[in-house]
Amino acid sequence: MKLQILVVAGDGIGPEVTGEAVKILKAVGELGGHDFTFREALIGGVAIKAKGTPLPAETLDVALESDAVFLGAVGGNEFNSLPPDRRPEAGLLQLRQALGGFANLRPSFAYSALTQNSPLRPEVVDGADILFVRELLGGLYFGEPRAWDREAGSAWNTMRYTREEVIRVARIAFELAGKRRKKLTSVDKANVLEVSQLWRATVTEVAQQYPDVTLEHQYVDACSMHLMNTPRNFDVVLTENLFGDILSDEAAVITGSLGMLPSATIGGQVNLYEPVHGSAPDIAGKGLANPLGAILTAAMLLRHSAGLEQDAVAVEEAVKSVLMEGYRTADLARGQQQNVLSTKEMGKQVYRTL
Amino acid sequence: MKLQILVVAGDGIGPEVTGEAVKILKAVGELGGHDFTFREALIGGVAIKAKGTPLPAETLDVALESDAVFLGAVGGNEFNSLPPDRRPEAGLLQLRQALGGFANLRPSFAYSALTQNSPLRPEVVDGADILFVRELLGGLYFGEPRAWDREAGSAWNTMRYTREEVIRVARIAFELAGKRRKKLTSVDKANVLEVSQLWRATVTEVAQQYPDVTLEHQYVDACSMHLMNTPRNFDVVLTENLFGDILSDEAAVITGSLGMLPSATIGGQVNLYEPVHGSAPDIAGKGLANPLGAILTAAMLLRHSAGLEQDAVAVEEAVKSVLMEGYRTADLARGQQQNVLSTKEMGKQVYRTL
Ligand SMILES: CC(C)[C@H](C(=O)O)[C@@H](O)C(=O)O
Ligand SMILES: CC(C)[C@H](C(=O)O)[C@@H](O)C(=O)O
Repeated sequence: MKLQILVVAGDGIGPEVTGEAVKILKAVGELGGHDFTFREALIGGVAIKAKGTPLPAETLDVALESDAVFLGAVGGNEFNSLPPDRRPEAGLLQLRQALGGFANLRPSFAYSALTQNSPLRPEVVDGADILFVRELLGGLYFGEPRAWDREAGSAWNTMRYTREEVIRVARIAFELAGKRRKKLTSVDKANVLEVSQLWRATVTEVAQQYPDVTLEHQYVDACSMHLMNTPRNFDVVLTENLFGDILSDEAAVITGSLGMLPSATIGGQVNLYEPVHGSAPDIAGKGLANPLGAILTAAMLLRHSAGLEQDAVAVEEAVKSVLMEGYRTADLARGQQQNVLSTKEMGKQVYRTL
Repeated sequence: MKLQILVVAGDGIGPEVTGEAVKILKAVGELGGHDFTFREALIGGVAIKAKGTPLPAETLDVALESDAVFLGAVGGNEFNSLPPDRRPEAGLLQLRQALGGFANLRPSFAYSALTQNSPLRPEVVDGADILFVRELLGGLYFGEPRAWDREAGSAWNTMRYTREEVIRVARIAFELAGKRRKKLTSVDKANVLEVSQLWRATVTEVAQQYPDVTLEHQYVDACSMHLMNTPRNFDVVLTENLFGDILSDEAAVITGSLGMLPSATIGGQVNLYEPVHGSAPDIAGKGLANPLGAILTAAMLLRHSAGLEQDAVAVEEAVKSVLMEGYRTADLARGQQQNVLSTKEMGKQVYRTL
């Protein structure tokens, strides 16, 4: 197995957590005799500072030549006053678009070792296992026209989808549901939005090709409530871009910390892997960040780009074991004094357990 | 005190819960010697069936002549295949727009009697008391252009705001925060959307007139998580239309049931009062609906349209007492056998306690 991986660590805690994920990937590569090579490039705020742009051309070039791109995080408070198209986040959005992956997979899983970390009651959350399939290249994020007309004192964005965009992401969601508990919840606001009506009609149409999967539709407002009341009722949740952004962050409370959540973006030319958490500038550089989201993201890379399902599972099991043994990072500690590890120490524990 | 109230009970459980709310309003009126008069009109699915349109002209005329409009709920499964502009929901949206109220107030409150009803842990939720101020006349709900072009296989909606729209709703939110715990959380997605950048800049500007209120900004994805992790950290939450729709439904889990949540829409020509829950066609006509959301909505009417703060509080206290005494509707029962009341019986208990 040969794999060329581009690491764009980005801002804030990005480099710290990415470092631990890369160590795990290297370990798996060496153990299995795989030829994983790693390159590095700039993105986000660090790229703005070094090159004046959040996605330098050389980063994009190398990304497109790679088999997979691993991203840490982008964003920082110092850029908050810039317009969207010049912020660190713009680099991420341009990268997503260039790589072409439209299906962003975000698992949200209740670890039994972390039951105490969820604000939800154990009896509500135990056993929850949800896979969000978030459409990543459409909707308000990319829709034109968009502008802030300062003189007129008015601003607008466009939520736009085509049938083809919905079909391709729906197919991936149905395929994945077919390999899981065979239930798909499609989320929209079809009682108000035309774009949601197209979404619902198209998903319903695609469903006919997957008769073994049960499809249900939920309005996004109702879904945001049901996810908390009955998280176990969900299997795969299919959403447009912004609804997926909101609901998958909300569902982090099922796992207990945003720092635990991985993601993979598939379906395009080059797959993109990024933990769900952001750059967390307040704790950057202090060794406090939880690297498990990034490490679980590495597992998704092994699964979806390397085809190494067993190794992916091994990494995921190692994370579970380390948590069962009582090791925690600061975000998970809840007042616990012993076995509270730094970013690096947590990475080492996973490595040791692998 | 003289008040002309239009009751548009609408669909599903709308008439049942509205009936109980009106009884409470009548009781308060009689006790205090106020001249409350009630008229009725059609809206939503029942209006489509009777008049072919979800907001008949005669309903709108009477609404505009009234001092307050009390709405039950709209929507039904039989209309699901209609385009947005011909559905029951369109009647509600047209009514909202015609009445002109742009600030939709949605309190979400942790009743100590209902601690067991929240999926959130008691130690997380106890004492939570949030007031959502949802902008109700802008954003994706009303933005043009909007269409589903079936031939082209593409659809779009527009999220649009003007400075003035943000200023007027922000002012109301700051005023309300000033009378509460003096904290305002403004929600946006300013790292991606131009319309959110206008939102954030404008709210920041308005904040200068309210130096006693602390303003914080949260991205909508982060907010959906923080609301569950640390609900007590929120006081007033100011959002655009769709974000408010999603987050306020999510926050229903703080209270324990969507059936408990009231809302009032103020700032326009005629105030509009509606419980947050929908028409719930599955339980309609069975006497199972929880009327407390509607009754608490009546309390908001007493507060915001009649200026009867003491009576509003009396109704709210009556609801608390009834819950403390152990009375429940089906949505709140959690397996409890005794004291599970029908819609009418629950209304009577509140009346008795008043
Ligand atoms: C950083 C931001 C642009 C991004 C998004 O909104 O997609 C993040 O919130 C995420 O969920 O990956
Ligand atoms: C019924 C629907 C149009 C409405 C909305 O989205 O505003 C409802 O969900 C609400 O929150 O009042």
